[in-house]
Amino acid sequence: MKKVLVIGIGVGDPDQLTVQAVQALNRVDVFFVMDKGVTKGKLRAVREEILRRHVKDRRYRIVEAASPPRDPSPADYRASVDDLNQAKQVVFAKLIAQVEDGETGAFLVWGDPMLYDSTIRNLDALKESGLIFDYEVIPGITAIQALAAAHKIPLNRIAEAVTITTGRKLANGFPPGVGSVVVLLDGEDTYRRFADSKVHGDVEIYWGAYLGTPDQMLIAGKVKDVAEEIHRRRSDARRANGWIMDTYLLRRAAT
Amino acid sequence: MKKVLVIGIGVGDPDQLTVQAVQALNRVDVFFVMDKGVTKGKLRAVREEILRRHVKDRRYRIVEAASPPRDPSPADYRASVDDLNQAKQVVFAKLIAQVEDGETGAFLVWGDPMLYDSTIRNLDALKESGLIFDYEVIPGITAIQALAAAHKIPLNRIAEAVTITTGRKLANGFPPGVGSVVVLLDGEDTYRRFADSKVHGDVEIYWGAYLGTPDQMLIAGKVKDVAEEIHRRRSDARRANGWIMDTYLLRRAAT
Repeated sequence: MKKVLVIGIGVGDPDQLTVQAVQALNRVDVFFVMDKGVTKGKLRAVREEILRRHVKDRRYRIVEAASPPRDPSPADYRASVDDLNQAKQVVFAKLIAQVEDGETGAFLVWGDPMLYDSTIRNLDALKESGLIFDYEVIPGITAIQALAAAHKIPLNRIAEAVTITTGRKLANGFPPGVGSVVVLLDGEDTYRRFADSKVHGDVEIYWGAYLGTPDQMLIAGKVKDVAEEIHRRRSDARRANGWIMDTYLLRRAAT
Repeated sequence: MKKVLVIGIGVGDPDQLTVQAVQALNRVDVFFVMDKGVTKGKLRAVREEILRRHVKDRRYRIVEAASPPRDPSPADYRASVDDLNQAKQVVFAKLIAQVEDGETGAFLVWGDPMLYDSTIRNLDALKESGLIFDYEVIPGITAIQALAAAHKIPLNRIAEAVTITTGRKLANGFPPGVGSVVVLLDGEDTYRRFADSKVHGDVEIYWGAYLGTPDQMLIAGKVKDVAEEIHRRRSDARRANGWIMDTYLLRRAAT
């Protein structure tokens, strides 16, 4: 039987892997690497540092494949994700074919495989289509946790709920019924929509980019006060580095 | 200057600490232990196992204090939490007084300090009241991540939001605008309210207790099919062990 590990590797600090993840890395014969576009260089360097630092006296192979291209502005977002995942499943099958029976392959997933990541869905689809392998999931520190620890803030207000969402969904408005919302995958500076305190009350933002890396940036304050600073520093950093990974918490004033 | 570390230690598997958390444990001179009621024995054993396994060749002291009692059925929940936190701050100040200048104390927090935990809030309140110390937060794997990894499921539906909430809040209904909700701190089996598919559609549940420990229990299915099994096994385990820590994901059928 082939074994596949889906290992959460955090968001940039090689020491934010769990001991369980480090032990898992040391069971791997074949690491699968799927890279895309501009983020390739830096993210690759972080991943190489993780292997260099944590894998001891073990021989492994690295099998690479190009990540299928993504439609940057699809008419139907959900359908485009389905198309992308089908293309990824073809690539996954080729990668898993490189693992011999009795060997272990691994996908290294940024953050935690549970959140805004398709690896689990694609492996389930391959198993359903008849491909035979076992797989196991190992959690990792998410950008949300790295953000909260860096700002030294609780995520929730006392006894209240928190919603985790995307920039795309936040564009439809502050989620109903919650005081705190964490936003991932926002390429459009959507937080700027909440700068008008006459419409939204005073909304606070805790923003972070390149979390856990030497380039970490943190800004916090009322959206109306810091939105332009975040926008400017985000744009500058994105231009300078060619990519950015960032996330933020928005919190409404308690009523 | 005194230093205080707030270290997330996961939910039961000593190997789900991060490398960063293990390094932090090895900088600590004084561990603060606040225990309460029935959970004391088992949780204490997990914490001792963490120190035994991860702290190498370092002398440390353990300073214990009783956790202030909590009103089990307060008239005003939010006010009772505020009262509890004020009582905790008095205890925190006594604990921190046991740390000498130049030494490091540490609170070990179940899961991640960002989620449904008062340690950060209480330390901020003590700093505001004039107590002088530095503190730092180290993230840990939450029950949510341990649950998702054990069930091998993504938390979110594709491109959709997720709400994290409490049993108390879920009793008011399925949160609006999301298909997936994670429930923590539910002592009342609130998921049973979603068993009627005529009212709620088919709601799926992914439930787990004692996650990451040898006693781990997992049940998944439609709420209408598995609610009674979860209730029965939860009650039996709680009676047998004297306590239970559990969490679950509810997912509505896609519309």
